[in-house]
Amino acid sequence: MKRTLGTCYYPEHWPEEIWAQDAARMKEAGLTWVRIGEFSWSKIEPNPGELQWDWLDRAIETLGAQGLQVVLGTPTATPPRWMADRHPDMFAVDAQGQVRGFGSRRHYCFSHKGYFAESQRITRLMAERYGGNPYVAAWQTDNEYGCHDTTISYSDAAKVAFHDWLFETFDGDINALNAAWGNVFWSMEYRSFSEIGLPNLTVTEPNPAHVLAFKRFSSDQVVAFNRAQVDIIKACSTAPISHNYMGRITDFDHFKLGEDLEIATWDSYPLGFLEDRVGATPEEQRAYARQGDPDFQALHHDLYRAVGRGRWWVMEQQPGPVNWAPYNPAPLPGMVRLWTWEAFAHGAEAVCYFRWRQAPFAQEQMHAGLLRPDSEDAPAIEEARDVASELEDAPEVQSAQAQVAILFDYDADWAWSTQPHGAGLSYFQLILDHYKALRRAGLTIDILPAKARDFAGYRLILAPGMMHMPADLKASLEQSDAEVLYGPRSGARDDHFNIPTNPLPPALVGLDVTVSRVESLRPDMPVALRNGGAVHCYLEVLEGDAEVILVTAQGAPVAMRMGRQTYCGGWLDADGLDQLITIIGTAAGLALRKMPEGVRTRRTATEEFWFNHSAEPVQTEVGLLPPAGMIRCKL
Amino acid sequence: MKRTLGTCYYPEHWPEEIWAQDAARMKEAGLTWVRIGEFSWSKIEPNPGELQWDWLDRAIETLGAQGLQVVLGTPTATPPRWMADRHPDMFAVDAQGQVRGFGSRRHYCFSHKGYFAESQRITRLMAERYGGNPYVAAWQTDNEYGCHDTTISYSDAAKVAFHDWLFETFDGDINALNAAWGNVFWSMEYRSFSEIGLPNLTVTEPNPAHVLAFKRFSSDQVVAFNRAQVDIIKACSTAPISHNYMGRITDFDHFKLGEDLEIATWDSYPLGFLEDRVGATPEEQRAYARQGDPDFQALHHDLYRAVGRGRWWVMEQQPGPVNWAPYNPAPLPGMVRLWTWEAFAHGAEAVCYFRWRQAPFAQEQMHAGLLRPDSEDAPAIEEARDVASELEDAPEVQSAQAQVAILFDYDADWAWSTQPHGAGLSYFQLILDHYKALRRAGLTIDILPAKARDFAGYRLILAPGMMHMPADLKASLEQSDAEVLYGPRSGARDDHFNIPTNPLPPALVGLDVTVSRVESLRPDMPVALRNGGAVHCYLEVLEGDAEVILVTAQGAPVAMRMGRQTYCGGWLDADGLDQLITIIGTAAGLALRKMPEGVRTRRTATEEFWFNHSAEPVQTEVGLLPPAGMIRCKL
Amino acid sequence: MKRTLGTCYYPEHWPEEIWAQDAARMKEAGLTWVRIGEFSWSKIEPNPGELQWDWLDRAIETLGAQGLQVVLGTPTATPPRWMADRHPDMFAVDAQGQVRGFGSRRHYCFSHKGYFAESQRITRLMAERYGGNPYVAAWQTDNEYGCHDTTISYSDAAKVAFHDWLFETFDGDINALNAAWGNVFWSMEYRSFSEIGLPNLTVTEPNPAHVLAFKRFSSDQVVAFNRAQVDIIKACSTAPISHNYMGRITDFDHFKLGEDLEIATWDSYPLGFLEDRVGATPEEQRAYARQGDPDFQALHHDLYRAVGRGRWWVMEQQPGPVNWAPYNPAPLPGMVRLWTWEAFAHGAEAVCYFRWRQAPFAQEQMHAGLLRPDSEDAPAIEEARDVASELEDAPEVQSAQAQVAILFDYDADWAWSTQPHGAGLSYFQLILDHYKALRRAGLTIDILPAKARDFAGYRLILAPGMMHMPADLKASLEQSDAEVLYGPRSGARDDHFNIPTNPLPPALVGLDVTVSRVESLRPDMPVALRNGGAVHCYLEVLEGDAEVILVTAQGAPVAMRMGRQTYCGGWLDADGLDQLITIIGTAAGLALRKMPEGVRTRRTATEEFWFNHSAEPVQTEVGLLPPAGMIRCKL
Ligand SMILES: [Zn+2]
Ligand SMILES: [Zn+2]
Ligand SMILES: [Zn+2]
Repeated sequence: MKRTLGTCYYPEHWPEEIWAQDAARMKEAGLTWVRIGEFSWSKIEPNPGELQWDWLDRAIETLGAQGLQVVLGTPTATPPRWMADRHPDMFAVDAQGQVRGFGSRRHYCFSHKGYFAESQRITRLMAERYGGNPYVAAWQTDNEYGCHDTTISYSDAAKVAFHDWLFETFDGDINALNAAWGNVFWSMEYRSFSEIGLPNLTVTEPNPAHVLAFKRFSSDQVVAFNRAQVDIIKACSTAPISHNYMGRITDFDHFKLGEDLEIATWDSYPLGFLEDRVGATPEEQRAYARQGDPDFQALHHDLYRAVGRGRWWVMEQQPGPVNWAPYNPAPLPGMVRLWTWEAFAHGAEAVCYFRWRQAPFAQEQMHAGLLRPDSEDAPAIEEARDVASELEDAPEVQSAQAQVAILFDYDADWAWSTQPHGAGLSYFQLILDHYKALRRAGLTIDILPAKARDFAGYRLILAPGMMHMPADLKASLEQSDAEVLYGPRSGARDDHFNIPTNPLPPALVGLDVTVSRVESLRPDMPVALRNGGAVHCYLEVLEGDAEVILVTAQGAPVAMRMGRQTYCGGWLDADGLDQLITIIGTAAGLALRKMPEGVRTRRTATEEFWFNHSAEPVQTEVGLLPPAGMIRCKL
Repeated sequence: MKRTLGTCYYPEHWPEEIWAQDAARMKEAGLTWVRIGEFSWSKIEPNPGELQWDWLDRAIETLGAQGLQVVLGTPTATPPRWMADRHPDMFAVDAQGQVRGFGSRRHYCFSHKGYFAESQRITRLMAERYGGNPYVAAWQTDNEYGCHDTTISYSDAAKVAFHDWLFETFDGDINALNAAWGNVFWSMEYRSFSEIGLPNLTVTEPNPAHVLAFKRFSSDQVVAFNRAQVDIIKACSTAPISHNYMGRITDFDHFKLGEDLEIATWDSYPLGFLEDRVGATPEEQRAYARQGDPDFQALHHDLYRAVGRGRWWVMEQQPGPVNWAPYNPAPLPGMVRLWTWEAFAHGAEAVCYFRWRQAPFAQEQMHAGLLRPDSEDAPAIEEARDVASELEDAPEVQSAQAQVAILFDYDADWAWSTQPHGAGLSYFQLILDHYKALRRAGLTIDILPAKARDFAGYRLILAPGMMHMPADLKASLEQSDAEVLYGPRSGARDDHFNIPTNPLPPALVGLDVTVSRVESLRPDMPVALRNGGAVHCYLEVLEGDAEVILVTAQGAPVAMRMGRQTYCGGWLDADGLDQLITIIGTAAGLALRKMPEGVRTRRTATEEFWFNHSAEPVQTEVGLLPPAGMIRCKL
Repeated sequence: MKRTLGTCYYPEHWPEEIWAQDAARMKEAGLTWVRIGEFSWSKIEPNPGELQWDWLDRAIETLGAQGLQVVLGTPTATPPRWMADRHPDMFAVDAQGQVRGFGSRRHYCFSHKGYFAESQRITRLMAERYGGNPYVAAWQTDNEYGCHDTTISYSDAAKVAFHDWLFETFDGDINALNAAWGNVFWSMEYRSFSEIGLPNLTVTEPNPAHVLAFKRFSSDQVVAFNRAQVDIIKACSTAPISHNYMGRITDFDHFKLGEDLEIATWDSYPLGFLEDRVGATPEEQRAYARQGDPDFQALHHDLYRAVGRGRWWVMEQQPGPVNWAPYNPAPLPGMVRLWTWEAFAHGAEAVCYFRWRQAPFAQEQMHAGLLRPDSEDAPAIEEARDVASELEDAPEVQSAQAQVAILFDYDADWAWSTQPHGAGLSYFQLILDHYKALRRAGLTIDILPAKARDFAGYRLILAPGMMHMPADLKASLEQSDAEVLYGPRSGARDDHFNIPTNPLPPALVGLDVTVSRVESLRPDMPVALRNGGAVHCYLEVLEGDAEVILVTAQGAPVAMRMGRQTYCGGWLDADGLDQLITIIGTAAGLALRKMPEGVRTRRTATEEFWFNHSAEPVQTEVGLLPPAGMIRCKL
């Protein structure tokens, strides 16, 4: 399969007269794909039951006639205003009890049965009409599930559905729930499932087991909502089905939802994300303001390759300043090309730019496109044309298993956010810190789902912070041929958020380490390691017979190793992580490098890519990389 | 007209026995005016329909008998408790949906028809009783419209009135509204005006066109509320009518409201404002903690001179520490005199001190007055006496057109706050930055309303950040004899908050500049200019054939000039603005100075005033200015 | 009475099989007391009216059989879920109008009559059953009144009760209330008590007199709730009754509530408190991260000794990391012993560790105990054993009046929080600052209630910031033999939050000082004193004939003295306070020391204790103190 490019287009936003010219210009720029439809419900069904397909028929025909392939989105992220009259209680409710009403997008509660049915109805109508259309080459369900904190809703609909979900989970045994949650603690015992409230607006913190269950339930509601659309589309179409995930949105289990889809896609906004969610220091934000974090996109590429079981796209690629971050700078010249190639280096099948033409109206009027609002070329389109031409004689999409893997567990993220124990600590950040350390060592990485049990072919596996680790996972890791790194907090909780006591965590197979005490630390009180670096934020007291391979300056064990397994009882800073990765990476027989600041590399089956994310030219072993520059080396 | 002084007095707060003595002391201190009545509704009408005018009759008589002139305020900012029983839904509702209830002041929604009628009723009763009173020499409507964020209300009453307002605005054509707002964007199209909600509590940001329309509507509601009182008073009285505006409250259009009034007044609290709204850096706050910002009051003096079409007062002048700022320091000795004279230098007819005697009770008990709560002199009264004596042989109130003007557009402020694009950016701050640069160059400035079309007599006009610029304004500016400065964001939107595309902004007459791209910058990433200074926060990419007069260190055009018009595509820092003002000020033939830190000057028709706002003595070309000192030079 | 140790135990959390072993291990560790029952309502009464006492009978029997003495808690802090069905409106309401529902603890409104009756019912049932039990040696009412901001509720129940309370307070005369509150100010006058709302959700700040009255009412509601339980228990039992107060919770009057109890106890979490409520600088937080603030616990020990009229305990002593602070570090080895001994040095009868065994479930699963969740010894138990053995030949509990006293007035704290005048200023912090200065001088201190009038035996009394000072208190202080220090803000308000005007504050007997003006200062603008140190945050202008003993660098009087009384018109920083304490402490004939950083001392009748709170060894006049070390010197 050739690597391809595409864009996101909204024919309903523009006069029909310019559609054909737009399509021709897309083709000229080297694009293959055009995603349409996902926000167009009010144009398709302006009044309840009054369907107007003709404009969409013509739009698809016009695009297809130019040789473009359409990705058709179901419009369920933006139900029209009349829907609120049919289902006045369809909206999500926030943690403060406020109804999140009409006037923007994603204004629905996943648990509302009435809207669920409406979503099925419009999906069926669309699938029946376009399931056999030759130009509709792929589907997208809804848009950016979970964006704007929309996974979790504290509505009455959610409460009723949560009761049912809990009834199923505990086989109708309320005493089992009370026991599993430790409800005896503050006389929180329930006599029936219907007594259970949602875990918001309590006097002090609610039971973490209650919170975690509600997060799991909320994730399952998203999966069910999506599956209903998938089932309908599959009955009408053989084209692959996708959904466009976001960056650092972990409120639902993307792996679970992804099992129902053929392709995972995601929306990559490197500069916007650096401003509003990467978690970088102000110094890092300043250094990478026009390039984005050097690892954040790569991590998501690897994550969504896993979610898509190998098949993944960038569905929305930032082409210039966005409108929605606290600050919205423009990319350094060359970065759009770099970002595109980086996606291909990580195995993307396609990269689509969001959006074709900057809209001069409504919420995203300051969001750059490939065209300016006056239809002139915006700067990015030239970089897209360059990539299109470079793709012509480039290798096809190719996947090669990496030697290094990180386990990514959405449930662990929920567990950490339920009980961070230290202000601001998150599982995602812990994973990103480890991922960055591996990248600083020049490694190529796979992300694996928490359900993975087959680890054949890996030399090094990282499973930090996975708070609940099922016994068969522990066994599989112990039996693998890889070096395995655990901790902090790996295996720290059972399935219902209790501390295992027989024995205490982590209770790993073949690794004699016990966490006998845990503390969290203010950022200004790191605990120095003997050979440089430090533990910060999170520190565990370790006991056991395993070999101590990392100690504090005072001699307390921080990382302990037995066989090929290592447990690290602290959140290491960058120097500390580099030390640890050197020790266990070397033990794993990996070739480690020390990458220059801002430079990253990745291998596919046939090539090694080098990318310079810094704003300065950098001399590397493969040559001089200008700012935003890249080098492809044949292997 | 002689310049005069006054004070704000609350006879209802004090035993009637001391009224006469208070009046005598006011007279002795050199005061002319005494404002009364504006919070006294519960004393006038303790029960619905039970009017008690006798105390107010006697108060006016007592004050008038001493030769004082009364400014009588309508009491509509503080309806009594019983009003809430008559109109339980009269309260404003905040953006979170909370009712803003009884217990302080300004507890009403401008859109509530029942309270609107009550406000007319009490105004009529008061106007009928005192319209012919010889001592009532002026009126004030209500008090500080918009203070405490009270312009905008998300009540049901507001929603219904907004529907009507939109119906009028779009001539009853809902499709015109959908088109103007770009509601197709996220399927936000409405089928009727009654479907439109208020732009709060949406999942993510609402349509900016929706937000801007709601701000315009909310401003119009204030104007209508005020006009109803004005119409009633005018039917009974020939005395001029005023309203006391506040500092940096821009939620309603003061020019539009001011058209219905004879005199504009404002409430000037230099130290309180420095603490809670000037936007100064911590260093500036520290340097001017006891003096206030050196330009903030001056800007408002010039603004309200424009709002009052030449006639304006300071209705409330801070005389000592206030109670309501985060921190409440005392003024440097001399500042009360300086503030008073500064108002006169800007053309004020009168300056009234708030308040006569510090109240020992209720919300403002820590607010200094001219008297202490024990009726002894507070420090400010001696400075007031000094001014009174200085006024005796000083020139009369005089207005002289300045050579320099800044356009001030409330609508532009709403547009910026609707879409700041960079966190914290505001139109008001942009105007203040430009005003400060002009003052640092020793210039005397006029503020002009956005409606101004006659620019005769001006040599330099600044119109930065005016996001919507009607075609006739552009034409008038181009045809004027002045140097004109635009940008950033001047003309960036059409009347319904869309980006003009044919051509792109700013689309000025006779100035070939196009903004081809826009970015916002974190405060820590300024872009240096070639000759010192920097662009910060906001930067535009400029194209066109106009002459480049300011460039970044990398050579990108920042300001471009053609004929007498200049467009600056960036938010300049102080050094950058000084550079630009030097270039275009010199071109305009202005005599530019470089004022010492904290020293400011202003010319009237016959005098040049010099004020030292700093806490140190400063040597100037007109002599040594002690801290808080001033010099008046005859021209 | 011997000094004793104890722990908090939850038999309902553990299998009955291990109760006896737990009891035996408690005994072995040297413990005397075990508190139980306070969160067990759902186990005692799983369904309304269905009482299950048998498990509690057996638990008490098992503990008592091992020689332990039980403190039995009423379970009213955690009503079961079914209570919400019986009293759907029983919950407190927060200032934003949100109901604070079921799902954690303290989910009730003190003003709800239905829940009040339920609380009496369960207390009566428990008192009747265990009032004569030989092992129940003490009682505890409820748990941590006021924790999680639960004193104040904006519910309808509170509003109705507030009306009654105001009716009583003003003898049914609404005009008296209007006059006392100055409601004329903004037409806030009421015609009947039922018109009065709660002071939340107003447009701008409510009347401070209104706010203060509501705080006083809310405090009285807690006192009444507690008294109802006390009356019931006393009818059934002769064992002493206690309540466990918290650190820095001042929302209700602990002295007033304490009058109904025999013993005051408090819950001491030095590390948690340092993180979330001490108000230390980041540098101090870092230096004392593993030791806690060196004065915060001591202040509370002295406070609760006063509340208990000499009889007081630590009911919950932190034994390791807690779970609830923003960051949760572990104590330095030795601190648990130090904290325990420090309590005894301040006169504690008993110190109980919270909790016996770390619970592996629910909200506090990360809260350390004496045992780990797997029942192994946690580090603290060894330090507890050490103390138990040291206690064997240590003196008995002993109280000796100190030479120095500080008046502590809950009402003053409410007054300051009602009107801090400068952002972040609090009475508690002012008291802590003064307490620290006395401790830095090596002094032993008593806290006295605001009601104290007999000051015999004291050489120095501090009464800073007591905003309302009754005339008989002023007289008693003037007539005492002690040096007395007042200000800032002492006597600044009358009983209804008005500024006294005849004369102005402080109006002390025999001290000619008048506060003629007041200002608050940003933290970055301290006013230097002539001999070092500074006034920060709060500065008053003083007049009068008293001797000036402290002046600003510019010569303005800051502290003035006449006879043995001193008024200080500023909030002094540490250097300033040290200066002032040196002057008046010397005048009082006290032996002053200069304690090394982190070292504190206290005398009982027979011993002088030295404690090193720093993380470094410190040489002192009594020898070398290791980190967390202590020395006991016989007197
Ligand atoms: Zn998107
Ligand atoms: Zn005012
Ligand atoms: Zn506790």
